[in-house]
Amino acid sequence: MKAAYQEATAFAPATVANVACGFDVLGFALESPGDEVTVHVTRKPGVQIIAVESDNGLPTSHLPLHPHKNTAGGAILALLEGIQAKFGVEVHIRKRMPAGSGMGSSAASAAAAVVAVNALLEEPLALEQLVDFGMKGEAIASGSEHADNVAPAIIGGIVLIRGYHPIDLVRIDPPNNLYCTIIRPHCAISTKAARELLPKQIPLQTAITQWGNLAGLIAGLIRGDDGLIARSLHDVIVEPYRAALIPGFYALKEAALNAGALGCSISGSGPSLFALSTSENIARAVGTAMYAVCADMHIDSTVYVSRLAHGGSRVLSVH
Amino acid sequence: MKAAYQEATAFAPATVANVACGFDVLGFALESPGDEVTVHVTRKPGVQIIAVESDNGLPTSHLPLHPHKNTAGGAILALLEGIQAKFGVEVHIRKRMPAGSGMGSSAASAAAAVVAVNALLEEPLALEQLVDFGMKGEAIASGSEHADNVAPAIIGGIVLIRGYHPIDLVRIDPPNNLYCTIIRPHCAISTKAARELLPKQIPLQTAITQWGNLAGLIAGLIRGDDGLIARSLHDVIVEPYRAALIPGFYALKEAALNAGALGCSISGSGPSLFALSTSENIARAVGTAMYAVCADMHIDSTVYVSRLAHGGSRVLSVH
Repeated sequence: MKAAYQEATAFAPATVANVACGFDVLGFALESPGDEVTVHVTRKPGVQIIAVESDNGLPTSHLPLHPHKNTAGGAILALLEGIQAKFGVEVHIRKRMPAGSGMGSSAASAAAAVVAVNALLEEPLALEQLVDFGMKGEAIASGSEHADNVAPAIIGGIVLIRGYHPIDLVRIDPPNNLYCTIIRPHCAISTKAARELLPKQIPLQTAITQWGNLAGLIAGLIRGDDGLIARSLHDVIVEPYRAALIPGFYALKEAALNAGALGCSISGSGPSLFALSTSENIARAVGTAMYAVCADMHIDSTVYVSRLAHGGSRVLSVH
Repeated sequence: MKAAYQEATAFAPATVANVACGFDVLGFALESPGDEVTVHVTRKPGVQIIAVESDNGLPTSHLPLHPHKNTAGGAILALLEGIQAKFGVEVHIRKRMPAGSGMGSSAASAAAAVVAVNALLEEPLALEQLVDFGMKGEAIASGSEHADNVAPAIIGGIVLIRGYHPIDLVRIDPPNNLYCTIIRPHCAISTKAARELLPKQIPLQTAITQWGNLAGLIAGLIRGDDGLIARSLHDVIVEPYRAALIPGFYALKEAALNAGALGCSISGSGPSLFALSTSENIARAVGTAMYAVCADMHIDSTVYVSRLAHGGSRVLSVH
């Protein structure tokens, strides 16, 4: 396929994966923060990553520029191959959240990258069709193909990945009153390391508890039933293992619940925590309470508050 | 509490528990068949089971008359104690399905029993409040307290048991086009034995597949999305073990799917199979196809076809 435009810029939001009881199958998009990716068409085929800017606008040396080792690069390579592109691209990535934070940073870059390249095309694909390519990019960071960040980062809303063979996405409109607080303690956890921590076998009884909660959460989210959401937001499988990687996890969670959150757990593989609340005011109070807990532990942290987003990635400019 | 009436009769329907991917947390009610229980007030406290009639109207020697060993008796004893009853009851049970069939037979008797006794009361409890007592009766048959049959048998519809501590019921209205076919091969499986067959530990990856499907099924049922229901109706955890107890299980399932069912799996702990279809005609064709498979194996069987019921137990008469 040919390019119809020379340059495009796209935005993709941070996302919360797992959502307590939905390990590996559930994620949702925030309105902000998010990464931006600009792509320029080149005659030379393939992908060249020109720059990765961090939060503060400065170049970052943390993320690799080699396209096969960079989530945005890998996602674009998969897309260009999938559409048999007759062109290559140069890529500028502007990160608005750090890698390894549990906020879907690598998924956001991969999502913005494929959405930007898609915007160049004579016949762009539908957003849902881009998820597969985004996954291939994100696999570079996480070590395995997962869609629970990249799918909501692209199509927005709350996304259940019912299954992977073939990928089956169930999009749920977020209740309009739901706000998410994220606290990111300033330390990083490797997604791979966080996965290796998990047991290969789990007790059947614990699994039953988990899927009862997930089923309740899905029903609660579809119906906008805050009480059911609150009763369902428990993770009895992954949290007990990964909490140990996060300093003060249980104190942070308790502070969030005491401040009025419906529930609180690890965002993705951490170290960030997310909490859901029924208003922006409560979500801000939850953030303040968690920030104070981090401050007491002398741990720097950043708090984000965002409504759950209906939309995912969007094209900011194309010409 | 005192009785306001002398006699009451209640009906409770057959139910399908587990529903493929919803092991121990999901069940739904049929419109028929169902058990009927009549209760008479006695001055003597406690419960006397006078008779248990089977399908054909004849007394059955299979089910125990001792109230502590009978699911209806146990459920009534729990209810009478819970409401501090000033009276006892004599009980007549009319079974319309066999015990050990996987159709929620013991739950139906327990449900009809507590609904009948409740109808006698000066201040009857709400149907939801009766589930706890019904569970205590059903535990006599199954060896542990479960609500995935008795809750839909009492309150009707599709019921998710989100959790047990305390019991948290999420009722879902069944899509109006959904019909259930049940085939009951004429052999019995002990619920206790079927439970003991299951592994105590399961692979995390398999659990993830299962809860993805359950989450998809819940979303599909709430939305009436037939395609999503069909894609979600898979049990990768329990069915592989219990299928071995049911002669010709995979041939029966294949016949159901070939005849147009959305999905097919074991009803409760078997040996009955259930299949869901999008019309009564398809559900009947599914029944015919499965019956033929049993006939080929020289196994007698009974086929039931029913719409998924909005209602559960109901009082037939009280005076």
